[in-house]
Amino acid sequence: MSSPRSWIAVVGPGDASPDELAAAEDVGALVAEARCGLVCGGLGGVMEAACRGARSRGGLTLGLLPGTDRDAANGWVVVAVPTGLGEARNALVVRAADAVIAVGGGWGTLSEIALALKAGLPVVGLGTWDAVPPGPGSGGVVPTALSGGVVPAGDPRAAVAEALRRIS
Amino acid sequence: MSSPRSWIAVVGPGDASPDELAAAEDVGALVAEARCGLVCGGLGGVMEAACRGARSRGGLTLGLLPGTDRDAANGWVVVAVPTGLGEARNALVVRAADAVIAVGGGWGTLSEIALALKAGLPVVGLGTWDAVPPGPGSGGVVPTALSGGVVPAGDPRAAVAEALRRIS
Amino acid sequence: MSSPRSWIAVVGPGDASPDELAAAEDVGALVAEARCGLVCGGLGGVMEAACRGARSRGGLTLGLLPGTDRDAANGWVVVAVPTGLGEARNALVVRAADAVIAVGGGWGTLSEIALALKAGLPVVGLGTWDAVPPGPGSGGVVPTALSGGVVPAGDPRAAVAEALRRIS
Amino acid sequence: MSSPRSWIAVVGPGDASPDELAAAEDVGALVAEARCGLVCGGLGGVMEAACRGARSRGGLTLGLLPGTDRDAANGWVVVAVPTGLGEARNALVVRAADAVIAVGGGWGTLSEIALALKAGLPVVGLGTWDAVPPGPGSGGVVPTALSGGVVPAGDPRAAVAEALRRIS
Repeated sequence: MSSPRSWIAVVGPGDASPDELAAAEDVGALVAEARCGLVCGGLGGVMEAACRGARSRGGLTLGLLPGTDRDAANGWVVVAVPTGLGEARNALVVRAADAVIAVGGGWGTLSEIALALKAGLPVVGLGTWDAVPPGPGSGGVVPTALSGGVVPAGDPRAAVAEALRRIS
Repeated sequence: MSSPRSWIAVVGPGDASPDELAAAEDVGALVAEARCGLVCGGLGGVMEAACRGARSRGGLTLGLLPGTDRDAANGWVVVAVPTGLGEARNALVVRAADAVIAVGGGWGTLSEIALALKAGLPVVGLGTWDAVPPGPGSGGVVPTALSGGVVPAGDPRAAVAEALRRIS
Repeated sequence: MSSPRSWIAVVGPGDASPDELAAAEDVGALVAEARCGLVCGGLGGVMEAACRGARSRGGLTLGLLPGTDRDAANGWVVVAVPTGLGEARNALVVRAADAVIAVGGGWGTLSEIALALKAGLPVVGLGTWDAVPPGPGSGGVVPTALSGGVVPAGDPRAAVAEALRRIS
Repeated sequence: MSSPRSWIAVVGPGDASPDELAAAEDVGALVAEARCGLVCGGLGGVMEAACRGARSRGGLTLGLLPGTDRDAANGWVVVAVPTGLGEARNALVVRAADAVIAVGGGWGTLSEIALALKAGLPVVGLGTWDAVPPGPGSGGVVPTALSGGVVPAGDPRAAVAEALRRIS
């Protein structure tokens, strides 16, 4: 049990489709094969599938829970941290990571993507948000420019490879 | 100095265009005219313009700062809270509000929009993000459904009216 | 409604004795007379009495609540911030203050005193904790030295005067 | 690498005496021998000594750092979480634990002890704070009663045994 050199956050909805779950499990397995730690929000859906995948390869999983009850973590989380911060814990998931892979997505996922891009972290997406920044004339205002964005990937293997490439 | 019945968060980039600043100042003034408190991230750009607008009508302004230095607040913040939470304070801006008005936007703004929608708050937008949820087939996965979203407004008056309508 | 130059935190138990409540109300009134803002945890007991005192002199009161419900604030809080951070909000109460006055005390109060002293803030006490640092030989270990500590005051007027003196 | 059933927080100063360091290292080793996880603030002094002790027995160590830089963790932390919350992370250290062992202590340590007692956690002390609650007449106020407190232990073995006994 040594400390992983790099950590990858896998973010996605707690209520996920079968396709999202399968993709998340593959992502988790590949993250562990790359000897990276996997950090997530610690709950169900995409988070649970990703942890299960990581554990299937002996990986280390860290779950940063919104509530104060450690038992709310899914069964594949090795280290569960009951932050008690509610959705403010999304910022901690991002801070704990060197790169973020988003699988599917609800509003919470979008907030994690946005916080990661704000922090300058690479974000790779599988079937996730396509955030369209404000365009000229929308609402009568001309927006400021913006750099970065979600890098779309075609499948789990490409997603993990891209995340690893951007960390190194 | 009585406690406002309702609080409206105005979120937007610290580095904003002249159009964004003008819109934010109008929004702030209208929020104060409606006797609502204005909460924001307390810094410059859209946040400062909105506070200036609110103060021009004698409104109450609350700035939840990311750092630990109260003096980082713009000069129109009446109550500055140096949270020391970094970007995790975005979650607190949202929690302190009954509705959110987004003017323009960078990644931080997008995170606040997403956290607000996650919490079920009404979000009205002026020249801001159009977040496109994952569509069928993107990345090979079929996403789950999602309710809510940013309500676009044509100008500051319409934005504040819409926010007030959704609070009541 | 102008922004106070200085903020004083009043900390103490939510379940307080009549003596503690009377002292807290006097402290709150004197804080407002000194044109300082009063920040506290926003709930009942000492927090409510201090806010009531401050409002009796037209002062500005800020309540940083542990939960997510703004309505949990006592009726004398002008600006209620539902942080949703649980007891972690104690650190925010301290950060928002230039000095701390502790009236009576439970474990939560002790945590705020300790966080304030850790941050180098002046802490004045009225019938509050006397924290005794580890002494030589206790538990078989010789402790490191420690600077600072709670400054005891004889009555509310002396407490506020001492806090103001240490801010200036 | 399985998930520990119980977690024990070891809290103490970053700038510690040789006696404190030796005690902390013994505590860490005994925590790991009991197959508990060890959580701490992740930095130096007592925290580092406790982690080193735990790792000497193959234990799992979790460091919840105040800053945003994972590299600030001591070299014996397996899972470092850069919370970016400053001293507010002390509340997270306590939440992540089933019991707390305090070794020596500064103001930060006292805040963790107080937060743990507030949360109803068992706290065992080795050469640490003896917090004296407000007594009758102090500052002219009669205080409310208070339950719980630090359980003093004579040596590391007794401290860990007492913590384990109170968890079960």
